[in-house]
Amino acid sequence: MKSYTKYLTFNTKRRRELIHITREVEDAVRESGIREGLAFVSAMHITAAVFVNDNEPGLHQDIWEWLEELAPYRSDYRHHRTGEDNGDAHLKSLLIHNQTLLPITDGRLDLGPWQRVFYAEFDGQRRKRLVIKILGE
Amino acid sequence: MKSYTKYLTFNTKRRRELIHITREVEDAVRESGIREGLAFVSAMHITAAVFVNDNEPGLHQDIWEWLEELAPYRSDYRHHRTGEDNGDAHLKSLLIHNQTLLPITDGRLDLGPWQRVFYAEFDGQRRKRLVIKILGE
Amino acid sequence: MKSYTKYLTFNTKRRRELIHITREVEDAVRESGIREGLAFVSAMHITAAVFVNDNEPGLHQDIWEWLEELAPYRSDYRHHRTGEDNGDAHLKSLLIHNQTLLPITDGRLDLGPWQRVFYAEFDGQRRKRLVIKILGE
Repeated sequence: MKSYTKYLTFNTKRRRELIHITREVEDAVRESGIREGLAFVSAMHITAAVFVNDNEPGLHQDIWEWLEELAPYRSDYRHHRTGEDNGDAHLKSLLIHNQTLLPITDGRLDLGPWQRVFYAEFDGQRRKRLVIKILGE
Repeated sequence: MKSYTKYLTFNTKRRRELIHITREVEDAVRESGIREGLAFVSAMHITAAVFVNDNEPGLHQDIWEWLEELAPYRSDYRHHRTGEDNGDAHLKSLLIHNQTLLPITDGRLDLGPWQRVFYAEFDGQRRKRLVIKILGE
Repeated sequence: MKSYTKYLTFNTKRRRELIHITREVEDAVRESGIREGLAFVSAMHITAAVFVNDNEPGLHQDIWEWLEELAPYRSDYRHHRTGEDNGDAHLKSLLIHNQTLLPITDGRLDLGPWQRVFYAEFDGQRRKRLVIKILGE
């Protein structure tokens, strides 16, 4: 068995941002030398998410509006008594999940025709990390 | 370490359909010869989902109604400017996730008493694929 | 490759309860002797969840209220025709997922500064199990 670990760092200009990271994950798979296995991709923060979907800008706007509807920004979350104002970012992260797993076959990400990997930042403008951990052979 | 990969193909009669796939995943585990490990099961499309829950028809109706409430069909998603009309299917897939991981112990799926695996099709009536990737020993 | 499996059992006093299990997962990682790998943590029931977020009591209250809003208790779920009254627990489990995966680096959980692991019980007051399955080397 082989394993390979890589960290990515983001510091977004805007508080909320969607970053396409399929290329970065593919790079990590190549660097790992692993031919058959699984690539785990996870935000290391609880105010961000990682998900698989389509790289289509209209859809991305739909996703942001939908996230805001189901896990809206509000000033009165109890979490804000700690001095934070990012309660919605925690809920958005729970809603679409902080992590994903991607299959590797023949040394490449084994994705469907429209599957792309995204890092969703819900409380950025500061240094945030993501971990890629690949297991296989 | 051993790995085993298998693809399933679906072409549902109706646009939305729930397919019970525990048996198919168990078959893949047996074929793999893996005794201890993890089985990754993922839709290869972004308008479908894979999840673990109860095989109870009343609950399945509850789940469909709930999905429609939280990620409703609408004609005016921005994604539809591309000519698609499946914006809700993308959101439903994000909501309950496109993938699951199942533990394998002593050569069998190590599930709780009521845990069953389902493929949820949100935009079918065409050929869609699912990947099962098993890692272990 | 090495693998290690451990089960935890819960029997909560209240029907709904949040249990912090980072320590228990760390114990399992230490017991496994695995230095590089992935720890899979999953409820073995379909009326409970496992998730990663902040260990902050105000946020936990926000999460419970939000879960109740998006997947409310209702008497009229079709699932209740079976004699159950836990339809909401199934939907809550689907919403925030029954499982999570955690990276292991240098023999320890490789979590971000605020990432903690929780078991969320939505229909307790009876014996429920959770499985930890660790793969790595």
